[in-house]
Amino acid sequence: MGEVGMKRGSILLIAALTATGIGAVMAFTARNADSADSQIFGGKLPAGYRDWKLISVAHEAGKLNDLRAILGNDAAVAAYREGKLPFPDGAIIARVAWSYVSSEENNKVFGQNQSFVAGPPTNVQFMVKDAKEYASTGGWGFAQFNDGKPANIVAKDCYSCHVPVKDRDFLFTRYAP
Amino acid sequence: MGEVGMKRGSILLIAALTATGIGAVMAFTARNADSADSQIFGGKLPAGYRDWKLISVAHEAGKLNDLRAILGNDAAVAAYREGKLPFPDGAIIARVAWSYVSSEENNKVFGQNQSFVAGPPTNVQFMVKDAKEYASTGGWGFAQFNDGKPANIVAKDCYSCHVPVKDRDFLFTRYAP
Repeated sequence: MGEVGMKRGSILLIAALTATGIGAVMAFTARNADSADSQIFGGKLPAGYRDWKLISVAHEAGKLNDLRAILGNDAAVAAYREGKLPFPDGAIIARVAWSYVSSEENNKVFGQNQSFVAGPPTNVQFMVKDAKEYASTGGWGFAQFNDGKPANIVAKDCYSCHVPVKDRDFLFTRYAP
Repeated sequence: MGEVGMKRGSILLIAALTATGIGAVMAFTARNADSADSQIFGGKLPAGYRDWKLISVAHEAGKLNDLRAILGNDAAVAAYREGKLPFPDGAIIARVAWSYVSSEENNKVFGQNQSFVAGPPTNVQFMVKDAKEYASTGGWGFAQFNDGKPANIVAKDCYSCHVPVKDRDFLFTRYAP
């Protein structure tokens, strides 16, 4: 390798180190701001979540205007039923939601406009408990999936809304018997 | 036993036979009119129904004013997901419902009156498929439980409301993905 080669090599090395450094800083920032929760579950919908047991249901009107089901994996449902607080590491809550749609078919049978059913799905949100990993957000990691793909949400924003129900381990939903 | 005793005995015997006859006729009528569906599941809530998988959710306004979840046993959920019609014998659908309640707690966080959640449970209804046993009501048996106890419902009345969705094997609910 000649002098030019040496120089070129050094420049490439510096460029490579710089890129690595920027990457590392970005990763560090992302993790600390909890702004990249697409990392949760490796960026994939947790297997079998649609089969999980039902915790409760709700209707959010307003801008969301959805019908939603809150499901839990076995650890989450057990904690709910036993009234255990805080929830154990590994507990996962899934919030599945669909557009709030008036059902003409059902209304005909009822003879009045009273039936609202699940329309197209909106998105799926998750809370996963890991007291250490997510210490800065109440021990919960937050994730959202749109059309099965991880959405770029800011966990701190999710968390700040959940703070008023800190006494129930940051969970709005109560178990519906 | 004297003559009087004989007479008395005969009268008692006739009375007993008559009572038995009336009872038998009543039981026969009840079964044939499907008006005694408290017999379904031996009058007990089917074991583990609250753990069944979610089919969909709905809000019935009007007089019912409930939030409801439609759950299915494995046979029912498989039939829904595979789009199999008619449903196989043994498929059971559970409709769990709770009062439609405005959540002050949630509304405070949202800053507006938009959140409706599951209040106290209302009742639980079931449809169980047995094409032969329930041939007169579309192959479905109907049952309702109030506070865990079988309610005295008239299956033919349930069935008549479901006739408009005969093409979907009498099921109003569509699977919510």
